[in-house]
Amino acid sequence: MTAPQGSNLLLALVQMAVKQNKPANLSRCAELVGIAAQSGAKIVALPECFNCPYGTKYFSEYAEAVPGETTEFLSSLAKKNQVWLVGGSIPERDGNKLYNTSTVYSPTGQLIAKHRKIHLFDINIPGSISFKESETLSAGAAFTTFDVMGWKVGLGICYDIRFAELAQVYAKLGCNLLLYPGAFNMTTGPAHWELLQRARAVDNQVYVASISPARDVNADYIAYGHSLCVDPWGCLVAEADEDETIVYAELDANEVKSIRQNIPISKQKRPDLYQVQYKK
Amino acid sequence: MTAPQGSNLLLALVQMAVKQNKPANLSRCAELVGIAAQSGAKIVALPECFNCPYGTKYFSEYAEAVPGETTEFLSSLAKKNQVWLVGGSIPERDGNKLYNTSTVYSPTGQLIAKHRKIHLFDINIPGSISFKESETLSAGAAFTTFDVMGWKVGLGICYDIRFAELAQVYAKLGCNLLLYPGAFNMTTGPAHWELLQRARAVDNQVYVASISPARDVNADYIAYGHSLCVDPWGCLVAEADEDETIVYAELDANEVKSIRQNIPISKQKRPDLYQVQYKK
Repeated sequence: MTAPQGSNLLLALVQMAVKQNKPANLSRCAELVGIAAQSGAKIVALPECFNCPYGTKYFSEYAEAVPGETTEFLSSLAKKNQVWLVGGSIPERDGNKLYNTSTVYSPTGQLIAKHRKIHLFDINIPGSISFKESETLSAGAAFTTFDVMGWKVGLGICYDIRFAELAQVYAKLGCNLLLYPGAFNMTTGPAHWELLQRARAVDNQVYVASISPARDVNADYIAYGHSLCVDPWGCLVAEADEDETIVYAELDANEVKSIRQNIPISKQKRPDLYQVQYKK
Repeated sequence: MTAPQGSNLLLALVQMAVKQNKPANLSRCAELVGIAAQSGAKIVALPECFNCPYGTKYFSEYAEAVPGETTEFLSSLAKKNQVWLVGGSIPERDGNKLYNTSTVYSPTGQLIAKHRKIHLFDINIPGSISFKESETLSAGAAFTTFDVMGWKVGLGICYDIRFAELAQVYAKLGCNLLLYPGAFNMTTGPAHWELLQRARAVDNQVYVASISPARDVNADYIAYGHSLCVDPWGCLVAEADEDETIVYAELDANEVKSIRQNIPISKQKRPDLYQVQYKK
């Protein structure tokens, strides 16, 4: 896709084709992040498991410590391209535990945030899709936000988006942009991928964007693709199809402000009746 | 619309045309509820402000005590037709306060629930729609659930649906069906009416249905119409267009069970990190 010009803040969603080859994945990632940066993107975001095929049988083999080879690569890439880089996710090894982990870098290459997927993807839809991340992964236990050029970003990974409470907590923490690297599949993707993002956007009056790997119909787990960005009114800003591409989305901070002013739901909530409480 | 046969539980959404004439509204309501009951509906639901045009200037004139003329009419109607009747809403007068109130009746004509709109509709979208219910109405301060033939129903009125927490509380209270009599308008209707219902349905794995008045393009406030029902997977079960009609929706309790089993989000939430707390 071509990047729009004159944007308030340009976000790039790198829907890369992930292969069963880590060096090839890193190399392709570097090319695509370079293109996104040259197109004017200030924040560049990668998909879930961008260095590793998505599947419990791959996680241990591809896992690395943080810092490690892939995160050092990401740090250099952010610095080289002078962008804020949201490093999708990688399988992280910490002692004898594995996590699905996203790391974020400033344009100086500094690690500014690290999110471990909080909600593990354990579902079983008979005849359709069955997956059990908890067979191999451990769950994170912390919220992750970071600041980028006046935006406050809340970070989740894939299945984390099914839990409305996480987005509600991020809204309470002041976020105006939520990013979800994720790989929905051919069952849940068509049914819920766009709906969940539009719901989080409208309910919390924030921008929401997701970053999927491109679809590979020969993979064990077939990702839906369709990386997209939704504005706080629930409208699609930009959306990919299933192929490898970069989606560009302009984010307008005034849009967040005016929608929150026009329909002031955050002030109209009823803390006397209900509250989303969270661990501080 | 024609009612499907052999349903698990048949719900009827009466999208009636509301006029500036209370006796005419009650009379038309009786006709439509009769048709719905004859079609096999066990639960019949009316729109927000079914006895009164929607608008702050009408509320005081049309307001009644509960019990009063309209609620006694509803009680008789439920008994006559042997249905569970969700009486949309009416402007209720209680002392010197007015509320936007929904009353619910069993097939014996007994009042089994009363909900006062919790979130008052105060929005201002310049050049598009401005409304301030709080000029004339007071807000309710209680959750409202009731049991119907094995279903647990959570009740909200219109703007209540914008607040995800209310639906989350109802899910925690064990509801598997949420009903929202409501009158979205020609701005928020196309943008958010269906989205909010699909979001509440998927996030809480419940059926959701809304009941709007028919659209009257000559009214001060033009209702969107489009009464609809969504299943717990987020799929439309049935939807009206803008004209006066009755929408029938079959509710399948097994659908709720199997979706909750296949994608067990209610068990996968992280109460160690967040919780929707509510007043007990």
